[in-house]
Amino acid sequence: MPQNLAKQQETLDRLTLALDSGAMVDVRRMLNGIPPADIAHLLESSPPRFRNILWKMVDVELEGEVLGELSDELQAHFLSRMDASEVATIAEGLEDDDLADILQQLPDRVTREVLNSMDHQDRARLEQVMHYPDDIAGGLMNTDTITIRARLTLDVVLRYLRRHDEIPEMTDNLIVVNRTDQFIGLLPLRTLLVSDPSATVREMMVTDVDPIAVNTPDDEVARLFERNDWVSAPVVDDSGRLLGRITIDDVVDVIREDADHSFMSMAGLDEEEDTFAPVSKAAPRRAVWLGINLFTAFIAASTINMFQGTIEKVVALAVLMPIVASMGGIAGTQTLTVLIRGIAIGQVGKNNQAWLLTREVTIGLINGVIWAVVVAIAASLWFDDWDIGIIIAAAMVINLVTAAFTGAALPLVLSRLNIDPALAGGVILTTVTDVVGFVSFLGLATLFYA
Amino acid sequence: MPQNLAKQQETLDRLTLALDSGAMVDVRRMLNGIPPADIAHLLESSPPRFRNILWKMVDVELEGEVLGELSDELQAHFLSRMDASEVATIAEGLEDDDLADILQQLPDRVTREVLNSMDHQDRARLEQVMHYPDDIAGGLMNTDTITIRARLTLDVVLRYLRRHDEIPEMTDNLIVVNRTDQFIGLLPLRTLLVSDPSATVREMMVTDVDPIAVNTPDDEVARLFERNDWVSAPVVDDSGRLLGRITIDDVVDVIREDADHSFMSMAGLDEEEDTFAPVSKAAPRRAVWLGINLFTAFIAASTINMFQGTIEKVVALAVLMPIVASMGGIAGTQTLTVLIRGIAIGQVGKNNQAWLLTREVTIGLINGVIWAVVVAIAASLWFDDWDIGIIIAAAMVINLVTAAFTGAALPLVLSRLNIDPALAGGVILTTVTDVVGFVSFLGLATLFYA
Repeated sequence: MPQNLAKQQETLDRLTLALDSGAMVDVRRMLNGIPPADIAHLLESSPPRFRNILWKMVDVELEGEVLGELSDELQAHFLSRMDASEVATIAEGLEDDDLADILQQLPDRVTREVLNSMDHQDRARLEQVMHYPDDIAGGLMNTDTITIRARLTLDVVLRYLRRHDEIPEMTDNLIVVNRTDQFIGLLPLRTLLVSDPSATVREMMVTDVDPIAVNTPDDEVARLFERNDWVSAPVVDDSGRLLGRITIDDVVDVIREDADHSFMSMAGLDEEEDTFAPVSKAAPRRAVWLGINLFTAFIAASTINMFQGTIEKVVALAVLMPIVASMGGIAGTQTLTVLIRGIAIGQVGKNNQAWLLTREVTIGLINGVIWAVVVAIAASLWFDDWDIGIIIAAAMVINLVTAAFTGAALPLVLSRLNIDPALAGGVILTTVTDVVGFVSFLGLATLFYA
Repeated sequence: MPQNLAKQQETLDRLTLALDSGAMVDVRRMLNGIPPADIAHLLESSPPRFRNILWKMVDVELEGEVLGELSDELQAHFLSRMDASEVATIAEGLEDDDLADILQQLPDRVTREVLNSMDHQDRARLEQVMHYPDDIAGGLMNTDTITIRARLTLDVVLRYLRRHDEIPEMTDNLIVVNRTDQFIGLLPLRTLLVSDPSATVREMMVTDVDPIAVNTPDDEVARLFERNDWVSAPVVDDSGRLLGRITIDDVVDVIREDADHSFMSMAGLDEEEDTFAPVSKAAPRRAVWLGINLFTAFIAASTINMFQGTIEKVVALAVLMPIVASMGGIAGTQTLTVLIRGIAIGQVGKNNQAWLLTREVTIGLINGVIWAVVVAIAASLWFDDWDIGIIIAAAMVINLVTAAFTGAALPLVLSRLNIDPALAGGVILTTVTDVVGFVSFLGLATLFYA
């Protein structure tokens, strides 16, 4: 009886099969029989050629919803092939924030045409949302609020609601405002349904919830929702006037993107990176990242170059030197990762970063010593030379302590400079651990064997 | 007027200040004046010594809620110092899923004592939730559902609700069941509030929503919520009988942890890793990871060892060889990252992985050739030797194509073997790119200079 994602996956598989075999009538029927979010997922999961075929088969009345579920990159891809009248058709039935996102991607001329084709009220509402960048509360909000006044009785509110054809999705609270539209409190539907109908809104409303300021960054909005277990929350301007509300479905997208951000950035990728981007788009972006890393690799190489004489004398050094550099990179990356996550979820602040730095350096020292002993024994036995064991052990401790310090200090410094530590941290860190690894190992060797 | 996270952060900062200065009365007053989720956040963000001091100051009636918001590791830490009667006190007012999580961390003896201290109904409910591991739908669910029968009129439903003191939080739907408690459909509160009271539940209920099977993995539950924009969803057993419901607040935690998982795993860390774990806990875990990587570093080193003779002749090779290895690692990690994310969000399947593999290898080839030319020119000029330029260019192309292939194929193979690609992928990949990088570069050099 119960069904789940497996069924959805099966539909997708059958669809792809039909697509492969060219059974286009079947494809169209199946495609428009699944929820818009699934259509969007299928488009995201398809190589470029299939995407365009599939998109053409989506029913016009579903196009808007599907588009709303797509990543920015795919939205832009499909929108670039539409004219203003097509966009205007799609616009109907889309939520403000999704529509605003879409319109912001279009050329100004098309956006203006679309706005002109809307009625006055819709246009005014939309222009308000479009006014805000999409990474602050204003850009996440919808204007589909149901507002009530504090002096009403619950009975009147219930009758007022019944006059609506529909209550917007994700409505868990009615928003109480005063006559100048300023936020006063919330009346949860849960309360409305169990309370005495003769009570007034003022008596039953919740007033200890702070509304969200319109310019609150989206990651802060996400944290507020997570900590307070909200389903929706009102958004107000500087004077406390109600502008709209944010709902959890849009916040979940922010949480997913924020969490993906660190992971993708560490490899120099964007969290919106299209998994199935064509070579022509993906290759240049990756090439830039490789170029940056090539530059840092040359820096590391030039430090080795200073010790050519020593390596010529003891070739075993060339064999062992990557071990020192690589262990530093691994240890530093661990520290960096812990710090980046801690900063991202708001755990790291002025008052605990000194403690963190000390702990990381202590761990670096302890683990440096432990593995230095192991490496020293292994290297000495391998090359039958106890000097090389001592040298690599010393270099290992130096590099692991440096790695721990750099891995902890770097994200703190970078985020104070407003540089994304997930993007820049890894590159800088491995440059440091490579250089320190090579210089300490080859430098000590030069002293020993000179 | 509007307030936000900045205010919360300020409270936390003031609290830490008071803690530092030993003003314990202030600390206690402030601590118990902020929401439990904020207390939990403060505990998570504090070094070990402060944690224990703070925990002792939390009001007994808040302890349960705070505990429910903590990570497993911190839960276990504080629980290990409590006896059964303390746990029983805390148990009141906790949601089933949170309480079940907590009880599962306790020694069996304590769990039994706590269960025995509860009334029969509560115990039965809880034992049902504890029956399921916490990474499937059953472990995420609560049993606080409001169920109704299809034959009732909405008017009767409204009167029935009014008899409740309270409707559970995050209730957006009433769940319609038949006489044997089998799931039939959902009656959204939104519908209840706008519909004609004389209509029946059967006429107004939604029946096209599939309930969640109790054994659905938690990441699938998260995807279902994300795709369908659910606030809550019913959970049923194999025969379709209603067991409970899952709410979005618990799903958000799953999403956050899943997304963190890949990021933390790439550095050999757990997504539940405690940012402020003491050295005694953090150091051993990190040491294991360093040990694994040391082993792979020795494998790479032993390949260099085979070419001692060549390096002795041309020391410049030792200077340049890390460049080839490192560029392979970077390129491979980019591919690996794209694939791991794609697999995690369910985009990569049988029907598109061949396309992905081909695209990645193509990108590897193109970028390999582009940067090979740059490296060749740079190396030739640096060492005034065009042979070395040709050698490094060829090795670069070989290693970047290998890296792309490995980075794409590895996560596909690993996930088929049920090995976590985010954890094992990076280690294996860099071993491959190091070995191939060194062997191709030094091997070609040996042929040239022999």
